[in-house]
Amino acid sequence: MLSTVKTPALTRQQRHDLVQVARGELSADVLIQNARVVDVHTLTVYRASVAIKHGFIALVGEDVAASETLDAGGLFLAPGLIDAHIHIESSLMTPRRFAQTVVPRGTVGVIAEPHEIVNVCGVKGLEWMLANGAQSPLHVWGSVPSCVPASAFETGNAVVTANDIARALEHPLVLGLAEMMNYPGVLGGDAGVWDILETALENARETGKRLDGHAAGLGGRDYQAYVNAGLESDHEAVTEREAFERLRAGSWLMVRDGSAARNLEVIAPLLTRLKPPRAMFVTDDADAGELLERGHLDRILREAVRYGVPATYAIRAVTLAPADYWRLPMRGAVAPGCVADLVLFHDLEQFGVAWTMIAGQVVAKDGQMLTEHDAPAAATDAIGLNSVHLPATWGARDLEVKRPQRRPVIGIRPHQIYTDALPAQRLLVADPHRDLVKIAVVERHKGTGRTGVGFVKGTGLQRGAIAQTIAHDHHNIISIGVDDADMELAARVLALIGGGAVVVLNGEVKASLELPIGGLMSDAPAREIVAAQRELESAAKDLGCVLENPVLTLSFLALTVIPSLKITDQGLFDVNQWRLLDAAKPAATKPAPNVLEDALEPAPRTVDPLKSPLPESLKKTRATSSNPTLPDVERLLN
Amino acid sequence: MLSTVKTPALTRQQRHDLVQVARGELSADVLIQNARVVDVHTLTVYRASVAIKHGFIALVGEDVAASETLDAGGLFLAPGLIDAHIHIESSLMTPRRFAQTVVPRGTVGVIAEPHEIVNVCGVKGLEWMLANGAQSPLHVWGSVPSCVPASAFETGNAVVTANDIARALEHPLVLGLAEMMNYPGVLGGDAGVWDILETALENARETGKRLDGHAAGLGGRDYQAYVNAGLESDHEAVTEREAFERLRAGSWLMVRDGSAARNLEVIAPLLTRLKPPRAMFVTDDADAGELLERGHLDRILREAVRYGVPATYAIRAVTLAPADYWRLPMRGAVAPGCVADLVLFHDLEQFGVAWTMIAGQVVAKDGQMLTEHDAPAAATDAIGLNSVHLPATWGARDLEVKRPQRRPVIGIRPHQIYTDALPAQRLLVADPHRDLVKIAVVERHKGTGRTGVGFVKGTGLQRGAIAQTIAHDHHNIISIGVDDADMELAARVLALIGGGAVVVLNGEVKASLELPIGGLMSDAPAREIVAAQRELESAAKDLGCVLENPVLTLSFLALTVIPSLKITDQGLFDVNQWRLLDAAKPAATKPAPNVLEDALEPAPRTVDPLKSPLPESLKKTRATSSNPTLPDVERLLN
Repeated sequence: MLSTVKTPALTRQQRHDLVQVARGELSADVLIQNARVVDVHTLTVYRASVAIKHGFIALVGEDVAASETLDAGGLFLAPGLIDAHIHIESSLMTPRRFAQTVVPRGTVGVIAEPHEIVNVCGVKGLEWMLANGAQSPLHVWGSVPSCVPASAFETGNAVVTANDIARALEHPLVLGLAEMMNYPGVLGGDAGVWDILETALENARETGKRLDGHAAGLGGRDYQAYVNAGLESDHEAVTEREAFERLRAGSWLMVRDGSAARNLEVIAPLLTRLKPPRAMFVTDDADAGELLERGHLDRILREAVRYGVPATYAIRAVTLAPADYWRLPMRGAVAPGCVADLVLFHDLEQFGVAWTMIAGQVVAKDGQMLTEHDAPAAATDAIGLNSVHLPATWGARDLEVKRPQRRPVIGIRPHQIYTDALPAQRLLVADPHRDLVKIAVVERHKGTGRTGVGFVKGTGLQRGAIAQTIAHDHHNIISIGVDDADMELAARVLALIGGGAVVVLNGEVKASLELPIGGLMSDAPAREIVAAQRELESAAKDLGCVLENPVLTLSFLALTVIPSLKITDQGLFDVNQWRLLDAAKPAATKPAPNVLEDALEPAPRTVDPLKSPLPESLKKTRATSSNPTLPDVERLLN
Repeated sequence: MLSTVKTPALTRQQRHDLVQVARGELSADVLIQNARVVDVHTLTVYRASVAIKHGFIALVGEDVAASETLDAGGLFLAPGLIDAHIHIESSLMTPRRFAQTVVPRGTVGVIAEPHEIVNVCGVKGLEWMLANGAQSPLHVWGSVPSCVPASAFETGNAVVTANDIARALEHPLVLGLAEMMNYPGVLGGDAGVWDILETALENARETGKRLDGHAAGLGGRDYQAYVNAGLESDHEAVTEREAFERLRAGSWLMVRDGSAARNLEVIAPLLTRLKPPRAMFVTDDADAGELLERGHLDRILREAVRYGVPATYAIRAVTLAPADYWRLPMRGAVAPGCVADLVLFHDLEQFGVAWTMIAGQVVAKDGQMLTEHDAPAAATDAIGLNSVHLPATWGARDLEVKRPQRRPVIGIRPHQIYTDALPAQRLLVADPHRDLVKIAVVERHKGTGRTGVGFVKGTGLQRGAIAQTIAHDHHNIISIGVDDADMELAARVLALIGGGAVVVLNGEVKASLELPIGGLMSDAPAREIVAAQRELESAAKDLGCVLENPVLTLSFLALTVIPSLKITDQGLFDVNQWRLLDAAKPAATKPAPNVLEDALEPAPRTVDPLKSPLPESLKKTRATSSNPTLPDVERLLN
């Protein structure tokens, strides 16, 4: 299974050198002296020195001769941290810039799920992410998105088929199939979904690569049914009960605690009680601002300890457990024969990082990447990924509502990604006094300029327009505005800068966030991205916008698999009825009945699936989700 | 990595059937009702029913419709037991007969290390073991012996090279390289040993197959050096300290508790304290009598609980842990999607077995295999493995000592496999009054009849002769006797019956144990083998023999890698000096210097390596074995 990239290939001679270093017959390259070693195998801490040769740990114990010595000063030496599930795109950073931000926080590797960039440009987006990550010292492994597009009513640029997945799984840095979100398709036997499962399972038998799950809200018998289909992990447990169920089903539990959803506090007591080996902490999504200011997995460790999780166990959940799950042998532990990916913590409460070492080299120190290991200057190889195309003929008249029709209005709920379908109204233009503004989605990949128009309540916008190229999962242009001309300008600016987000008022650009890579990411340093984000938020506020994070909120208003009323370039979409409302616009080819029933994604990310309204087809699935595996009488033998 | 045999291949339709059974849309094949399920993931026990379809677990929870129902009567349903390291040959039984004995004890799988039969007939012995095991419901997986022959001074029949190993690793039932016993060769960089390591490591990178260790007495830096060479497990820890060291080094700890060595009691407190996921219980060697009367892994579970190990953790050590270690996915747990290999225990203290289920079928009940799953009658396919060949010209005169020479005498120590080199004496014939009898080793594979003769003290033998074809590791004929004619007859009888053990007095066979398969195993039922063993022991006692287990004691007197004085067909061998003493006999080709230094095996099996005298070359190795990894100050955070 283990590709040469995954099992770093020592030559025979190098391996024998490690043997000799351990026996004191050969000098080490580096000796880390005076450390308190965090042993994730026995969940203990002990004083030792660590000898390194050819980037690998040769000995954990007494001092030996070495070319270079590092004094750990009695601090805590742990395995480098690994995030088992993250969408790097959510940080708006390229992988190498992301690396620059998280490596000083002790992160040595991530398993990226490049769902967003692959929706924009297919599997080549995955390859680009891995290649870009390879420019940094961070290990950037990947998984192949399994659900592109999210539904047939979104005009994205990419369709990922079972064949695409088979090819992508051959990439040595790809460790498996990414989160299978289409659980109704899994449970209902949708042919396309099962083609993908079959492909991945066949590959897994040969290579040991994984099938990652995503089963938001699934419980009881349905969760077990999902496991039977071959899915091996889940990061959507939001209660102790769900977490317990997943562990009992043999799943690898990824406890998510990221910028978009925080589940650790609720699940921490269960982990403290059971210390299950198959549990990890992941971020799923992480803002640039949070990464920069509060940290990455170091932040999660800090919070886990605050919630009462033993520090050594918490560290195992972001080191050995992800290495074991993703089948990355000789990683995730401070032990002989392991890759010398290490982090030196000041303590095991705040988890301040003194330095981070990758493959035997200190690459970051005191919160900064060391110059010689920093990201190189240019990332112009991303140009081919730009995909914001508007036809010259497209303009404000495409945003006009030609004749007044009774149409429901999208109602935004604060801090939720699902929406309400508000009572229908006849509207031609925005009515900011009643908090009703225009919303439009403009196809931007193929240059058709096809535009869906509707109205939305809850933005607070009083003037001008906001537009962006982040709109799950198709990532067309989504725009809200009071003025059609400002909306046109905003879209034009996006095409000009290659994507991002922009705030326009009276023909003037008030703020912009440039995300020229796929319209999703920037190669600027994190600090610049965060500054631009805040300027943008400030400019939006100046227009009267009351949304706390307008980019995040807008990004979910075009996602057809989250209830209730959404909009795509094909017009308003009623998720509960699973149909387009605007018959005048050319509709997508009607999907086959099983797709209609099954192509729903679960309610993802910030929504609490237990509280959100669900479309009928999902309700049918969930009706059977009792919790039979939870014991009526449980006897803990220990 | 995971061959189709290892990941049982469900068809797409079958897998979807499992999904539907879990959702109540399709009937299960079998429903086990009213069980207390032992969950090895969370180390808890809970009441549930288990639905099975196509031999796999589809649901653990509420009752569902099923073609057949089994009432578990509130008993404890655990995953079927797996022995991660066993030499089946030590039971003297063929794999299918072994299966007949252990399956009713709850064992569903073993990873066989067919070291003995492979010494007799090479890799085809491994293949034969797997094929024979496949005749039974027991899963018999294998590993490829890595150290055949044990040394160049033994005339065995087989040499297993790196090429042989590469080929054998392609067998779908072979899960890895077997115990690398030649740790001096590993540490010293012996070319042949490293050819084998390189071959296995290369294969492991592609397939995920394992490199099994055996590092008796190795500690501290040397143990870590051994791990650096790529060895992933060890079953030779005899103290808590050694066990702790192995866990900290990231090794998979196999705690051995078999008929030949019992290490569980000493190591149990460490396991109870740390509950490390990477710990297993194995037997290594198991007598037919013990298997029949006291059990197999059920016995170890009983003892573990008696030593204070929590029952759920102990069960994990013989179910999920071996499945995880040997990379047998979807095994070792009562969870959806797993193979329905199960055992129903009456309780979690005595571990009496109500029934054993393999792949969804009850195959044994109340201590007996069910007739339809019992071993078939014939095992004549073993004929090709017979290899007891004496030339017609061989006879008593080959056993004569022609001229009296001063020669040291082999001194047997009770319950030890190492011997003393007693002061040299001039002897022509046995002198039973002084407890000095003749000992001979006769080459039996190639039919040369080459015979090494010496004298041994400590047997108590007063008359007649005892001979057998079990003699580690070459398994030539080894014989002790007072009378040359009886010794000749004993050897001739062995050739006639195809091997085994025989007791002869005054030209008459007093007792015999027929082991016609390779001279090592019998296809008779366990009960018959045990009866024959006891008759043999009784007959030996009648000759005055004081050895408690004469077959076991004799089997180690020809093993050149255990100190101090041994005998092979090439004559007396001084292990400490690493040389043959009888220059008149044709010696083996002098091995290259590194072989001389490095080809030593560690003191195996029953010997306590910390107490036994060691040859100089081993002493050199062990001199560096301090224990630097054990903490001066240890801080347990939990």
